Amino acid sequence: MYDNEPINFASDNAAPVCPEIIEAIRIENTGPALGYGNDDTTRSMEEDLKKLFGCDLKAYPVATGTAANVIGLSSMTPSYGAIYCHKLSHIELDECGAPEFYTGGAKLVLLEGENGKMSADHLDAELSRSGAGVVHHVQPKVISITQVTECGTIYTPDEVAAISKVAKKHGLGLQMDGARLANSIVELCCNPADVTWKAGVDVLSFGATKNGAMSVEAVVFFDMDKAAEFEFRRKRGGHIFSKARYLSAQLAAYLEDNFWLENASVANKMAARLAAGLTGNNSCVLQYPVQANMLFVTLPEKSIEALEKAGFLFYVMGPRNEGLVRLVTSWNTSQSDVDSFLEIELK
Amino acid sequence: MYDNEPINFASDNAAPVCPEIIEAIRIENTGPALGYGNDDTTRSMEEDLKKLFGCDLKAYPVATGTAANVIGLSSMTPSYGAIYCHKLSHIELDECGAPEFYTGGAKLVLLEGENGKMSADHLDAELSRSGAGVVHHVQPKVISITQVTECGTIYTPDEVAAISKVAKKHGLGLQMDGARLANSIVELCCNPADVTWKAGVDVLSFGATKNGAMSVEAVVFFDMDKAAEFEFRRKRGGHIFSKARYLSAQLAAYLEDNFWLENASVANKMAARLAAGLTGNNSCVLQYPVQANMLFVTLPEKSIEALEKAGFLFYVMGPRNEGLVRLVTSWNTSQSDVDSFLEIELK
Amino acid sequence: MYDNEPINFASDNAAPVCPEIIEAIRIENTGPALGYGNDDTTRSMEEDLKKLFGCDLKAYPVATGTAANVIGLSSMTPSYGAIYCHKLSHIELDECGAPEFYTGGAKLVLLEGENGKMSADHLDAELSRSGAGVVHHVQPKVISITQVTECGTIYTPDEVAAISKVAKKHGLGLQMDGARLANSIVELCCNPADVTWKAGVDVLSFGATKNGAMSVEAVVFFDMDKAAEFEFRRKRGGHIFSKARYLSAQLAAYLEDNFWLENASVANKMAARLAAGLTGNNSCVLQYPVQANMLFVTLPEKSIEALEKAGFLFYVMGPRNEGLVRLVTSWNTSQSDVDSFLEIELK
Amino acid sequence: MYDNEPINFASDNAAPVCPEIIEAIRIENTGPALGYGNDDTTRSMEEDLKKLFGCDLKAYPVATGTAANVIGLSSMTPSYGAIYCHKLSHIELDECGAPEFYTGGAKLVLLEGENGKMSADHLDAELSRSGAGVVHHVQPKVISITQVTECGTIYTPDEVAAISKVAKKHGLGLQMDGARLANSIVELCCNPADVTWKAGVDVLSFGATKNGAMSVEAVVFFDMDKAAEFEFRRKRGGHIFSKARYLSAQLAAYLEDNFWLENASVANKMAARLAAGLTGNNSCVLQYPVQANMLFVTLPEKSIEALEKAGFLFYVMGPRNEGLVRLVTSWNTSQSDVDSFLEIELK
Repeated sequence: MYDNEPINFASDNAAPVCPEIIEAIRIENTGPALGYGNDDTTRSMEEDLKKLFGCDLKAYPVATGTAANVIGLSSMTPSYGAIYCHKLSHIELDECGAPEFYTGGAKLVLLEGENGKMSADHLDAELSRSGAGVVHHVQPKVISITQVTECGTIYTPDEVAAISKVAKKHGLGLQMDGARLANSIVELCCNPADVTWKAGVDVLSFGATKNGAMSVEAVVFFDMDKAAEFEFRRKRGGHIFSKARYLSAQLAAYLEDNFWLENASVANKMAARLAAGLTGNNSCVLQYPVQANMLFVTLPEKSIEALEKAGFLFYVMGPRNEGLVRLVTSWNTSQSDVDSFLEIELK
Repeated sequence: MYDNEPINFASDNAAPVCPEIIEAIRIENTGPALGYGNDDTTRSMEEDLKKLFGCDLKAYPVATGTAANVIGLSSMTPSYGAIYCHKLSHIELDECGAPEFYTGGAKLVLLEGENGKMSADHLDAELSRSGAGVVHHVQPKVISITQVTECGTIYTPDEVAAISKVAKKHGLGLQMDGARLANSIVELCCNPADVTWKAGVDVLSFGATKNGAMSVEAVVFFDMDKAAEFEFRRKRGGHIFSKARYLSAQLAAYLEDNFWLENASVANKMAARLAAGLTGNNSCVLQYPVQANMLFVTLPEKSIEALEKAGFLFYVMGPRNEGLVRLVTSWNTSQSDVDSFLEIELK
Repeated sequence: MYDNEPINFASDNAAPVCPEIIEAIRIENTGPALGYGNDDTTRSMEEDLKKLFGCDLKAYPVATGTAANVIGLSSMTPSYGAIYCHKLSHIELDECGAPEFYTGGAKLVLLEGENGKMSADHLDAELSRSGAGVVHHVQPKVISITQVTECGTIYTPDEVAAISKVAKKHGLGLQMDGARLANSIVELCCNPADVTWKAGVDVLSFGATKNGAMSVEAVVFFDMDKAAEFEFRRKRGGHIFSKARYLSAQLAAYLEDNFWLENASVANKMAARLAAGLTGNNSCVLQYPVQANMLFVTLPEKSIEALEKAGFLFYVMGPRNEGLVRLVTSWNTSQSDVDSFLEIELK
Repeated sequence: MYDNEPINFASDNAAPVCPEIIEAIRIENTGPALGYGNDDTTRSMEEDLKKLFGCDLKAYPVATGTAANVIGLSSMTPSYGAIYCHKLSHIELDECGAPEFYTGGAKLVLLEGENGKMSADHLDAELSRSGAGVVHHVQPKVISITQVTECGTIYTPDEVAAISKVAKKHGLGLQMDGARLANSIVELCCNPADVTWKAGVDVLSFGATKNGAMSVEAVVFFDMDKAAEFEFRRKRGGHIFSKARYLSAQLAAYLEDNFWLENASVANKMAARLAAGLTGNNSCVLQYPVQANMLFVTLPEKSIEALEKAGFLFYVMGPRNEGLVRLVTSWNTSQSDVDSFLEIELK
């Protein structure tokens, strides 16, 4: 397609897999193992997550972020329930109605909020007029937040705790879409527990694919009661792998020696470098604070053309003449990738 | 768990992955690629399947056999439809209701039939009294057959063609669960086309996981009209991989140089060897003709105990004192695996 | 359509409405009343049912038998559940998959059994090999029995109690499709409680439409815990009437002064008269014991023709030359209806 | 509950049934009739609607407005579809997720718009950025508009036609929730065809219950291709009445001699009288133009108390101290009802 290999700012999931993850799969590949998660690697992966989060939990590997989110959510709400989420959330915009499908037709109630984040106060106000208990209305059951948000911003532990407080007040569960959780942990410099269960998260989609794994996310139940139905719903979704150990092996390698945080750290630093380079350039306007590995920026149309011609991969959001571009950095984005991008853009 | 490494007759999906498949994943892992199947490897894999089957088709990789079956089926029937299948079929017994879930509540109508196979005549009779067109009854829409069947037996091309003729007579589509298609092709010594589209199959789950791959099946649409909805349904199911190229790379390697048939050939030969060894032993009764890589045999209870103690993995079906055992051979089953099993069993 | 008004043996729901029910609707029609069941008539109807059954309960009117069955069932099983029922049951054969739709894809597991009845022993055996707790299989959650059965036969209180005992042993709920409950009560000469909650029924579809009402059934929860979700599921099904009082008024009139049992008594007596008339006629073979208001009988083809020509309405089941006919008597079937039928048939 | 009979401004469905409709039910009640709509009254009712609308069509009676809307909509969209509607629409706010349930999880996309109405331009803009054809997003399939809107306002034929033009441009169907269609026809002084099929409506919920019937709405398919699936979906929903003729008889009486328009005319006039009485009173603020039989008005809290005490039924929307009240007039609202309300309110 390109004279040279293209440089990826399209998505962190357009990056290749870390060699360490591939190697873990290769090492896993010896001898028989009973299928469907009845294997030592899967059991051990769950123990690794217990250590990481410093608490008891139940964890199940699935292969896609959508599966992680929607099978988790469907364990938390009846079909007549409502899931409160930000209007820009992945479950609303990018999963082709998978939450509605898996829940049997629950409704996503959309919240406004700056920088892709919902506020606890706004949430509280909406829940207060939700019609809870009235048969004509869907019943509020879950709040879903995204960490890192779809705008590349981050919830602090305090912000999550405030949302959790509202959830508890109204009797709802709290789910976190953590497809890019690693990038948030690096930025927050906190313990993974701080922004999840200690802040009140009940069920977490613990992402790995966007941060160097091949295809694995763990659905982590801090509220273990909610896990009772999960395995049946996962099976019905076709998401129990017969050779599950190869999913678990990816996760195990991902967690080893803070490998996952190192990957995310690279991505975040490269995003910061990109943001720094673009700032001060009058023709570029950053749309949101850059807190992780994703930037939204308006560029002149001719810059977009020049960058595309030079082999950079990225998404133009909306009409090209509006110039809004999304740039995502990855575990394997290099300084030279960033610098060559800036060089063209700033010409 | 065992003093020595256990020997697997539990399932072909308890076997490890072929090294060639692992290597293909490793080789795939270079440079960026757009996600969700917009990559060269996925496009090329579809071309490989066109060559293999000698026809135009559409093919989509998914990661589990259940996903392949049920997303395919849900593209072939409305929610008020009926899927006619054998009462022992995997979609009825082993998918936790995934077909009902994905179709929005279609009904599986169960057929009797010797050796796990439905007959065209019985099917025709059942369809003739199905209430087609009458609003009180679910409407016949799809026939699903399994190749190799859950009893380890095989449909000949003529048998499939006869079923297809009934399908066409009543206006139904024909789906084939080919989780072990390779094992049937080896046994039939036929072209893959002969027992699929040339015999009237519209949609095929083309299995690879049970025959040496890590986690991939292709849903193949010979009736390409039926593919229109597939991608949306796959997405809603959470079964579009962002890093789809690693699924496609497995399939590409699987198909190269008849690799897939060699794997299946090993498994079938080992099953035949096992069957031959058990035959003539009065205490063993084979339940079905052994035509592929799966045996159902009744053994004395003390044999079962001795075999388990010796580290053999296999499933006891039903109460132990009835002694019904399922034995499955795999791409990596060795003559010595078989012979050591026979040695203990025949003691 | 006919020279004379046709005589209905087609169905008890092809009969008109009792004048007393029409009159009750007319009387109800005064002044405003808040909608959706927040009216005095609905509250009073529930009290009437408490008196009738001699226990506390929750009762909700719906307008069709299918709605009563499937909204009740969907309150008793998750989407990954299994409903055990006779293979001839209405929920399996005559509701176009409504149970699968309302439950989100639960599976109906079909039981054999003479005269349209399941036996407790057979049920127990099937449940013992159901795969409860194993993720690959749908999970047994409900047993559904039909009183009167689709063959026109009746479960005794002891038979229901034996089934309930099996239900409790395996942790399942027990639902009764009582579309023709009245006809069974008359035949059993028992208290309505005896064959329902005292025999272990948790949820009952209490039919009225087939026995003289216009369009109303009550879903009665003896296990009131199971009612928690019912109202939301009813609303989602579009089955909460804004002018609910006109449903409740029908039920109230139906229950008054044993009116419902008198209606059923007529129907049963006419069925018995018809059966007596047909018995001893060599060309007629009754297929099942006649215990309520429904007969299945084989007639010579020319009798069928003569009867149709004479304006009798009834259903021929299956091919006409096999001569299987279903005859249903109603609250308004008269002796002369029966006698004129017999006169032609026996010519 | 009250010393005197309460006066209903709560809802048009809290009003009783017109005596003429009750009488039609009584007259219908003679002789047998085959069930499930295979009766002469149902056939004749469809012919009546053809005459009313001056075109060929298919029409099916159901008993509730929610059923009419959602079974109609589920015939127009696949499960991965999107239904575009106003954010205040009944299908979004007051049906407990019934559209999501019946469609198998389609998504309602919510539009802003003054006075409860969507504008064609805004709709066009939203559809232009909907992600049609892209697998990650639900696919736009239907536009649903409400006539009379939930704010008591009315779409003109030109406005409907403009929306229909956008629908056609983007390949969507157009559904109209006409629970109060009669009230709009009276106000518009137009032919029913003008604001429905001639303006591009494909499927109409033709309401009768709120305008004097007991419990019946017709789902009218002007686009008869879309009716193919309707009957199966209605059956699965439990919405085919065995004694369907009593629904059809209500509709037939409703349509006779413009009876339906006379009823609506009374309601509209009483609403206008109420609005006129409230206007010019500084303490009352009408929220929307009063175009049919529904007013939203803010009243002083003490007025609300006085009115409730005097036995008026109406709904307070939101917190009482904000004073927002909904007032609905009906076919049986009298001048003295209105005047006595005004008398208290204006004191």
